[in-house]
Amino acid sequence: MSWITVMGFVAGTCTTAAFLPQVAKMFLTKKTQDISLFMYIILATGVLLWTIYGFINEDIPLLLANGITLVFVCSILVLKLRHG
Amino acid sequence: MSWITVMGFVAGTCTTAAFLPQVAKMFLTKKTQDISLFMYIILATGVLLWTIYGFINEDIPLLLANGITLVFVCSILVLKLRHG
Repeated sequence: MSWITVMGFVAGTCTTAAFLPQVAKMFLTKKTQDISLFMYIILATGVLLWTIYGFINEDIPLLLANGITLVFVCSILVLKLRHG
Repeated sequence: MSWITVMGFVAGTCTTAAFLPQVAKMFLTKKTQDISLFMYIILATGVLLWTIYGFINEDIPLLLANGITLVFVCSILVLKLRHG
């Protein structure tokens, strides 16, 4: 595997894992007022489309990274809608 | 252009534009307490790596989408560091 491919994997891991601290923070504090609801609605739409795009193109890394990100982004969306 | 390519462009536009409402909200309210600093540090790292990856692979859509997203994510990071 080339170092460019490795860089792609590291990049994908970062942009997916990044949402976990936000999920944890919202879950523990139940404070979500400063979070933009609009951001997560648009983001969930985009990540869902990337997931479908990855599925159609049989692009496993793209499908996997976006599928997992979608779970985190939807969790943030649910916590935002619950706690306002 | 196939509808799958169009879907990719729509997906990229969504995952980039999504950060704008959060930048605007933070800029206007100056309230950033519920935002996870750790999320945006990891995300900025990941998006920077995607930008370099797009540059090396001469993948213009990937380079453009991540380059613009990087500006938004760094803006959120600066606002978070400024307002706590």
